[in-house]
Amino acid sequence: MSLLVVGSVALDSIETPAGKRDNALGGSASYFAIAGVRYAPVHLVAVVGEDFPQLDRAQLQDQGIDLDGLQTAPGTTFRWGGRYHENMNQRDTLFTELGVFEAFHPELPAHYRQIPVVLLANIHPNLQKEVLEQVRSPKLVALDTMNLWIDITRPALLDVLGGVDLFFLNDEEALQLTGLSNVLTAAKEILSYGPKIVVVKRGEHGALVRTAHGWFSLPAFPVEDLQDPTGAGDSFAGGMLGYLASKGGAYDDESIRTAVAHGTAVASFTVSRFGVDGLVDVDRSRIDARVRDVWDLTRFNVEE
Amino acid sequence: MSLLVVGSVALDSIETPAGKRDNALGGSASYFAIAGVRYAPVHLVAVVGEDFPQLDRAQLQDQGIDLDGLQTAPGTTFRWGGRYHENMNQRDTLFTELGVFEAFHPELPAHYRQIPVVLLANIHPNLQKEVLEQVRSPKLVALDTMNLWIDITRPALLDVLGGVDLFFLNDEEALQLTGLSNVLTAAKEILSYGPKIVVVKRGEHGALVRTAHGWFSLPAFPVEDLQDPTGAGDSFAGGMLGYLASKGGAYDDESIRTAVAHGTAVASFTVSRFGVDGLVDVDRSRIDARVRDVWDLTRFNVEE
Repeated sequence: MSLLVVGSVALDSIETPAGKRDNALGGSASYFAIAGVRYAPVHLVAVVGEDFPQLDRAQLQDQGIDLDGLQTAPGTTFRWGGRYHENMNQRDTLFTELGVFEAFHPELPAHYRQIPVVLLANIHPNLQKEVLEQVRSPKLVALDTMNLWIDITRPALLDVLGGVDLFFLNDEEALQLTGLSNVLTAAKEILSYGPKIVVVKRGEHGALVRTAHGWFSLPAFPVEDLQDPTGAGDSFAGGMLGYLASKGGAYDDESIRTAVAHGTAVASFTVSRFGVDGLVDVDRSRIDARVRDVWDLTRFNVEE
Repeated sequence: MSLLVVGSVALDSIETPAGKRDNALGGSASYFAIAGVRYAPVHLVAVVGEDFPQLDRAQLQDQGIDLDGLQTAPGTTFRWGGRYHENMNQRDTLFTELGVFEAFHPELPAHYRQIPVVLLANIHPNLQKEVLEQVRSPKLVALDTMNLWIDITRPALLDVLGGVDLFFLNDEEALQLTGLSNVLTAAKEILSYGPKIVVVKRGEHGALVRTAHGWFSLPAFPVEDLQDPTGAGDSFAGGMLGYLASKGGAYDDESIRTAVAHGTAVASFTVSRFGVDGLVDVDRSRIDARVRDVWDLTRFNVEE
């Protein structure tokens, strides 16, 4: 079953204690797509400027990602610059240049409209809504967002959330969105906004999932030689939804649990190299092996 | 197999967003002992002042804890006051009055000296060392500490660590002790200081364990109606070592994994009520049921 992703394709300038990279292929849709295509066909919707390097376009194409929905507009590609702190748990945004994203409106090619699994990656909620209005009765819709949209476009975000099955956010965003002080009560509260599954992404602390039936949680896989945390969350989403797409778009609790393990595995490869390098190098069999490592990380015998 | 604990018995004044309590029974040894005695006999070494309430002494005795090693000295009992922030992840210490702890030297009654499983709870490393010198070839020695001792008594701490099997600490302490910026590399480094097992306590994010053979990690059990996080770490240690004592003091990797699940379960009861109330109310069968809940929290199918 195919995946549709709308989000950003960007050129990232990243500094971490492990190194530095300028104008590297990045953006939420890139990370998601490169992760997801390990599981299922991926069709991408985004915009780049006329300055977008042919090499980066070729890299996405070589991964097998359908770029028919990638517009090229006059102007410059979205650029983001960030510097990570010594422990890599925090980062400062050095610059954000929206470029062609400022006037972007997603237009789905005809063959995109029947795609059953949709990720609305982190962009303006109105653009996420425009995509939802162009797809026909998708089986599974997931959404990611950021503090900025909760802050300045809350009504639009709540509106689009009403049509979403699975919602990705982090601890701070969950508290900000609900006005609560406890992330557990916040995640439960958010179920009443529409999503059936709330996935709280906790970085080095893994993921916490709330559904109507209860909690599920996994720690992050320990990556001792962490290089660059950029894209960890987007590739986590790509692994998770990719797995669900490969299972026919199921999102019952059992499928979600295994999907979170796949997201965890995929993200561990992302952060072990700079930019998308850790993802493009890995094939599905290595991801599956890492899923077994995640299983081994947390297993214990209840009875002895 | 019996447990020996040396640490503090204190009167705590606690404020959390859920309530307030003055002069409640607390201290690392109290929490550890009340947790551990659910699994095995516990023998306590500590000091209180002449003002220590008879009711608190009776509560420890009623739990079946051996208080032959609890000295009563002229002066006042150790008092600690703390106020938790809105999210309960952080707290401010309002006061620390050492009282009789200032002149304390542990003296083990004769029948304590052969106890095979020992927890050196958070006190001055020199006092931890004095206890180690009084026990005869224990099977398993665990140690807990705090940032203060890493800061002002580092050589003494490293000295006592050399004779320890299992070391409890948190993320910040691991970085502080090693001078490293990554908790994973820090935990591995600490294995070279003596301990065979490093248990990084991460509060609401669970626990991360490093042994010679690799990593083990569990998230915390989600407690939606969190009341008071005080004693979570000490009771986690009590559940973990209590379980190991009940298994003959084994600390192979498989036993450690199940022990961490028991620590996780016990701590979840502690934080659901004020002070030690959540612990004294719970029996072993409810803890075992919670261990199964922890198992269910993290389980997933690798193959579908």
